[in-house]
Amino acid sequence: MINLIDKFTSFLQDNPFTKNKTKGLIAVSGGVDSVVLLHLFNKLKSEFNFEIGVVHLNHSTREKNSDIDELFVKNLANINNNNFFSKKWNSSTSSNFEELARNARYNFFFDIKKKESYDWIATGHHLDDQAETILMRFIQGNSYRGLKGIPQYQNFLIRPLLDITKNDIILYAKKNSLDFRNDESNNDLKFLRNRLRKNILPKINEINPNFLKSIQNLTNNFNQISNWVDITIDTFKENFSSLDENNNYYVDKDELTKYPIFIQQEIIKSFFSSNNKWRKHIWDRLREFLLFSSTGEYLILDELSKVLKDRKKIFIISNVKKSLEAIFEFKSDGPVSKKIGKYHFNLNKIIHSKKFTSNNSKELIDFDLIKKNH
Amino acid sequence: MINLIDKFTSFLQDNPFTKNKTKGLIAVSGGVDSVVLLHLFNKLKSEFNFEIGVVHLNHSTREKNSDIDELFVKNLANINNNNFFSKKWNSSTSSNFEELARNARYNFFFDIKKKESYDWIATGHHLDDQAETILMRFIQGNSYRGLKGIPQYQNFLIRPLLDITKNDIILYAKKNSLDFRNDESNNDLKFLRNRLRKNILPKINEINPNFLKSIQNLTNNFNQISNWVDITIDTFKENFSSLDENNNYYVDKDELTKYPIFIQQEIIKSFFSSNNKWRKHIWDRLREFLLFSSTGEYLILDELSKVLKDRKKIFIISNVKKSLEAIFEFKSDGPVSKKIGKYHFNLNKIIHSKKFTSNNSKELIDFDLIKKNH
Repeated sequence: MINLIDKFTSFLQDNPFTKNKTKGLIAVSGGVDSVVLLHLFNKLKSEFNFEIGVVHLNHSTREKNSDIDELFVKNLANINNNNFFSKKWNSSTSSNFEELARNARYNFFFDIKKKESYDWIATGHHLDDQAETILMRFIQGNSYRGLKGIPQYQNFLIRPLLDITKNDIILYAKKNSLDFRNDESNNDLKFLRNRLRKNILPKINEINPNFLKSIQNLTNNFNQISNWVDITIDTFKENFSSLDENNNYYVDKDELTKYPIFIQQEIIKSFFSSNNKWRKHIWDRLREFLLFSSTGEYLILDELSKVLKDRKKIFIISNVKKSLEAIFEFKSDGPVSKKIGKYHFNLNKIIHSKKFTSNNSKELIDFDLIKKNH
Repeated sequence: MINLIDKFTSFLQDNPFTKNKTKGLIAVSGGVDSVVLLHLFNKLKSEFNFEIGVVHLNHSTREKNSDIDELFVKNLANINNNNFFSKKWNSSTSSNFEELARNARYNFFFDIKKKESYDWIATGHHLDDQAETILMRFIQGNSYRGLKGIPQYQNFLIRPLLDITKNDIILYAKKNSLDFRNDESNNDLKFLRNRLRKNILPKINEINPNFLKSIQNLTNNFNQISNWVDITIDTFKENFSSLDENNNYYVDKDELTKYPIFIQQEIIKSFFSSNNKWRKHIWDRLREFLLFSSTGEYLILDELSKVLKDRKKIFIISNVKKSLEAIFEFKSDGPVSKKIGKYHFNLNKIIHSKKFTSNNSKELIDFDLIKKNH
């Protein structure tokens, strides 16, 4: 058995978040992971001079049990003289519950952090969570970026238990006679993560009993690769990109093509907002464009942005919409033909076909959904 | 359903192996994959001016059935006027059977290729094989290098069906009423690959029905990353490494440390024979050495090689053994102390302890296994 206190202490000593910043929020669900996390923080709080607060989001999904969870966590906080913050959350929809719940949790945690001036937030994610996440992303077809897994530090979030197995957490709880709540929804096979945990991971562990250790090496590997790609992109942008007189970025075409195509794609993507997630077909189109298009061609990436291949440069043009000069109206239910500037527009009504086309100059529109301005 | 003939034709047109080199060996086990592969080659052989030979290794594991397989494949070759080469193989051991069988197969194929002057060898590996391989390596803890998967081209080997699913291969066999042999050992759960196929892959496909497509993207991704790392290593070596007067390679320390540690490790490794596979603990020790050792320190990687950190350079020294000046003998069963050159050696007999140490200046030896020269 590992010495969890020692490992935890060295985590706190080494990491930049807890080094000088001592006011921390611990996210506690009431399950064994977060109860152990809170126990460790309270055990070491005088040594590190921590002021510890506890945050809990009541998911309201298990009716009475959710309220008992909240009470249980509140009580834990009181016993330890930790400030306690909680909130009731009601999901309006049952689809996509996991993602909505996660967003609700983190939004609440960050609200409290800001309102109450905490320095950081700690969550109880552990190595088994990491393995489940990596496996899920692997199955769903993520690239190396996804296989980095859950980060140990991210903004103000820290995950001190990320290198610790669930098994070691449970052993610690037993040894210290810690009381905790069981969340039965962890056994609900309607959630993908639970299916992985129950049906697939045990079979993987049969084949490789050190799978958790392997996952640690793998995430480490992919973190390094990702960082290197990021540094490469930044260095490239610093040296081979500029703004033109129209406030559009451009990059040096010859320099760009020295890199493998996946790096070229990421360099172009980096000029757009990082919140703007691209679907796979956009990445594919950009790839085709960079590899095979000729000088003078451009690619419309989405309604706001396009990329233009010049003789020596590739231009990245955002906010294309702004440059639209006017809105043109078609006031007819039948076929229409109109010349606007140097473009010809033809509007035809198609009844049966739902065949989409890769031809960029054709667009299929659901007629019944068009807003009519009579 | 995909048009296999079209896909196969464009594969043959695009690839550098079959473009001008027309004498090819097809590895045929008698199973549906290799039977379809052979059928496609024979169908297109006049168009591409191919001379097709068939190789088959009789594994002798299923007694009479192995011989029927051989006869079946021989017959297929005869019907199509393909040269036929086969050999009986008897595994001397039952452990590690899969790896031994694979080595025996490829050794035989390459022998025939050389002896009979063929240009290339084609195997029937398909996308399901690829997915099994990637999953196996993922579970066993491979890094990005392993997740590249089975290569489509490798030396003289080509795998034209690597992008085709098993399902599409079976459909093609049905449509063309092809006869093939079933290998029952594909159902034997003592083989790891079969356990993956039967127990884990179906559950993964439930979660992501496009898993095979995901695997294609993943291998593509990791192929690009691997190639980029290879290019980076080569470029580094070209620019920042040299030979010193003692025929030892050295690299520029400042330039080396500009790279992420996994690249630094691979650069150092690249100076040693690529056949010489390093176990994980050697990679770990090299990592520690590069990150944390001081000037003047050296690291013994294995009995033949060491790495030395100088003020501005890192030396890579192979064939350390050669530099041993003599063999010194300890002629005693009790404790001994001896000074050799500037080193002090102490030999102590320990009865009970089996505690290993990371101290490089201590070595634990099994006394009973030492050869005595009286």
